[in-house]
Amino acid sequence: MPSSPDSEPTGQPAPDAVLLDLDGTLVDTVYLHVRTWSAAFAEVLDRPVPEWRIHGCIGLPGDRLIRRVLGEVPEEAVRERLSRGHRERFLAAAEAGLHPTRGALNLLHDLDNRGVPHVVATAAGTEEREALMAALGNPDIAVTDADDLPGGKPDSSVMHAAAAQLDADASHIRMLGDAPWDGHAARAAGLSFVAVRTGGFGDDALREAGAAMVLDDPADCLGVL
Amino acid sequence: MPSSPDSEPTGQPAPDAVLLDLDGTLVDTVYLHVRTWSAAFAEVLDRPVPEWRIHGCIGLPGDRLIRRVLGEVPEEAVRERLSRGHRERFLAAAEAGLHPTRGALNLLHDLDNRGVPHVVATAAGTEEREALMAALGNPDIAVTDADDLPGGKPDSSVMHAAAAQLDADASHIRMLGDAPWDGHAARAAGLSFVAVRTGGFGDDALREAGAAMVLDDPADCLGVL
Repeated sequence: MPSSPDSEPTGQPAPDAVLLDLDGTLVDTVYLHVRTWSAAFAEVLDRPVPEWRIHGCIGLPGDRLIRRVLGEVPEEAVRERLSRGHRERFLAAAEAGLHPTRGALNLLHDLDNRGVPHVVATAAGTEEREALMAALGNPDIAVTDADDLPGGKPDSSVMHAAAAQLDADASHIRMLGDAPWDGHAARAAGLSFVAVRTGGFGDDALREAGAAMVLDDPADCLGVL
Repeated sequence: MPSSPDSEPTGQPAPDAVLLDLDGTLVDTVYLHVRTWSAAFAEVLDRPVPEWRIHGCIGLPGDRLIRRVLGEVPEEAVRERLSRGHRERFLAAAEAGLHPTRGALNLLHDLDNRGVPHVVATAAGTEEREALMAALGNPDIAVTDADDLPGGKPDSSVMHAAAAQLDADASHIRMLGDAPWDGHAARAAGLSFVAVRTGGFGDDALREAGAAMVLDDPADCLGVL
C-alpha cells in the first residue's frame, strides 16, 4: 500500500532514545478492546454503551475509561466487575491469537540495528502485558509497566519512569503511540510524540494531542523514528 | 452527556424527506463488523489484516471493502469465502444481541410525529437487514435495499432508489449516515448529508465527505433532522 505523504522522513535528527507504546501500537488490539469492554458493560450494567465512545477511551487505564464512557463513577464493586469482565474476555480472545501491527517486529530490529536505545512502556496489567509480549514473540526488550505506579496514561508517570530507564534527556526521547492519550502523556513528560494510525483514531485527533508526525503503522517508522 | 456545540440546530429549514442509513447509524454495528471481517480475513488468507484499515472501509459493499483493504482483487472464490466468513460470524453475533444506537427509536418516532417522510436505505444483504431491523424492534418503515441494484455505496443507486421512493426533490432530502461513504453516495445523488459519530469516524473525515453537520448520535437529531 502506498505510504501517505506524512510518512516521509522529516529530516529531523534521530532521537537519543525511543519509547514505544505496546497495546494498539505494536500489537493490533484496539478493536478487540472495544468489543470486550462493550460486552462487559452490557453484562454488568444490563444496558448497551455506545461503542464509538468506548473506542475514544481505549488507551486509558480501566477506571478512567469507565468513568469517561459512563460520565459517572460507579461504585467500586461495579468497576471491578467491569474491569474483570473486560480482562477475562480480552485474555480469552488473546489465546486465540493477537497479531503484531504491520512492521512492529521489523521496527524493533531496526532500532536494535541502529543502536537506538528503546523501551516498551505500558499501563497494561501483568496478564495482558504477557499476552501482548507473547504476540510479539517475547522479544528481549525492556518493559516499563504501570503496576507499581500511581497513575497510568494520561498520567505521565509511566513516561517519566520509562524516560528515567532510558537515561536520556526527555526532550531527546521520541514516543511512539496510537492514541491521543499517548500524546497527552508524552507531552506532559516533555517527550516528542509520533503517532501511528493503528488505533483507528483520526489524524486531527492525533495532531491535536501533539503528534509531530502521523504514520500508518510501525512499518512506516523504519529509519524515521 | 453534554451535547457537542455541533449538535445545536442550525436554523436550516426542515427537509422535505429523510433517508436513514441503517447499519452503524441506527444500529451499533461498526465495531462488530470490523472484528468479524478481521476474523474472516485471518481465516481465509491465513494472515492478519490491519483492523484500522478494515474500519476505514466499513460501510462499503463487501467486494469493495475486500478490494480496498487488500489493495488487490482476489479471485472470486476467495471473495466469496471472505464474504461468507464475515456474514456467518456477524449473524451469529447478532443472535446474541445487536443494540440500537442512542436515540434511534426516538428519532423514528419523532419523524413520524412530525410527519416527515422517511425511508431506511441499506446495502446490507437480506439476512443482515433482517437482523438489523429486528434490533430496532421491526418498526413499520419503508426499507430500500440494494439487493436488486447494481451498485451499493458509494455507488449512489441506493440513494436514487430511496429518493424516488420518497417522491421528493433530491435537493430537499437529508440523508443521515455514519460513514464517509454515506456522504459520498448522498452527495453523488444530490442529497444533503448529516453525519453521526456512531461509526467511529473522525469529524474531519465526515466533513470531507460533505457532512453539513456532525452530531453524536440519533438522539442529537431529534427536531434537527
